Amino acid sequence: MKCYGFGMKLSQGVEWMLHSVAVIAQAPAGTAVARRVLAENYDLPEAYLAKHLKALVRAGVLVATTGPTGGFRLARDPAGITALDIVEAIEGSAPPFTCQEIRQRGLAATPPELCRRPCGVAAVMDRAHQAWRSTLQEVTVADLVKLTPKPLRDQLVARLSSGR
Amino acid sequence: MKCYGFGMKLSQGVEWMLHSVAVIAQAPAGTAVARRVLAENYDLPEAYLAKHLKALVRAGVLVATTGPTGGFRLARDPAGITALDIVEAIEGSAPPFTCQEIRQRGLAATPPELCRRPCGVAAVMDRAHQAWRSTLQEVTVADLVKLTPKPLRDQLVARLSSGR
Ligand code: FES
Ligand code: FES
Repeated sequence: MKCYGFGMKLSQGVEWMLHSVAVIAQAPAGTAVARRVLAENYDLPEAYLAKHLKALVRAGVLVATTGPTGGFRLARDPAGITALDIVEAIEGSAPPFTCQEIRQRGLAATPPELCRRPCGVAAVMDRAHQAWRSTLQEVTVADLVKLTPKPLRDQLVARLSSGR
Repeated sequence: MKCYGFGMKLSQGVEWMLHSVAVIAQAPAGTAVARRVLAENYDLPEAYLAKHLKALVRAGVLVATTGPTGGFRLARDPAGITALDIVEAIEGSAPPFTCQEIRQRGLAATPPELCRRPCGVAAVMDRAHQAWRSTLQEVTVADLVKLTPKPLRDQLVARLSSGR
């Protein structure tokens, strides 16, 4: 699927889920956060949020629990989940640049024996993507929680403990 | 315009134009490369290529000349044009992540006085985008030319000199 002419765009789900996973990380130990609570937290459409929560479960970032106190909890320690894990769970891990090997076409066609490695253009586009990934990989959910102002964290923990 | 669910995608024009600008950089001094020559070089659809060439002229990367020997030449030294200039001419410079300030909505709403700076999530997404941009900014068209195998460059220069 191509998205010609709109430029690179990340879905709104990235913002929702980076914030929502940080919320889940603040739930009292052993408790899950209900989807309704996550939706109300930032006033997000619950049906659409469900899709993204599912993607995070599939990616092994969250675990879904069922029953009256069911919901979502982290699949592992917040210091072991990176922003990249969350972004790629939602957007997939395909790089935004795809080389169509145009160098092997037309009058300028490079002979196959000179095409064993990616060309210079493909290499720089890949380097840029890896730089983007590295930055997101250096930030964990534990870091994102710490970046939230303390009074807000206290409020949130109080609300999550009361189950509302 | 949003492109939900397809992930980040760069248009094929990025590959075309990074390669084509490197071709134009190899034209004999003072000569322009015709659009037809650029299209034939990598077997690219000429009408679609025209759209991207126009974007590069608008961005001040290329200059269009008219008349029987008209075509495109670099607007400045190849060492002064970066891969980023070309990519952003085609894709625009809007970052792929847009913060919708969800932190100010819902039950978890952050009071405005705590929202004077971007939140931690927006900050990390911005950092990743800047890392991507920096990588592309470090590579110039002169570098891309040098990354092309020498025999291919010689062939190209011979063909461009003959105007075919
Ligand atoms: S051939 Fe695809 S980027 Fe060079
Ligand atoms: S409020 Fe938009 S990314 Fe945090």
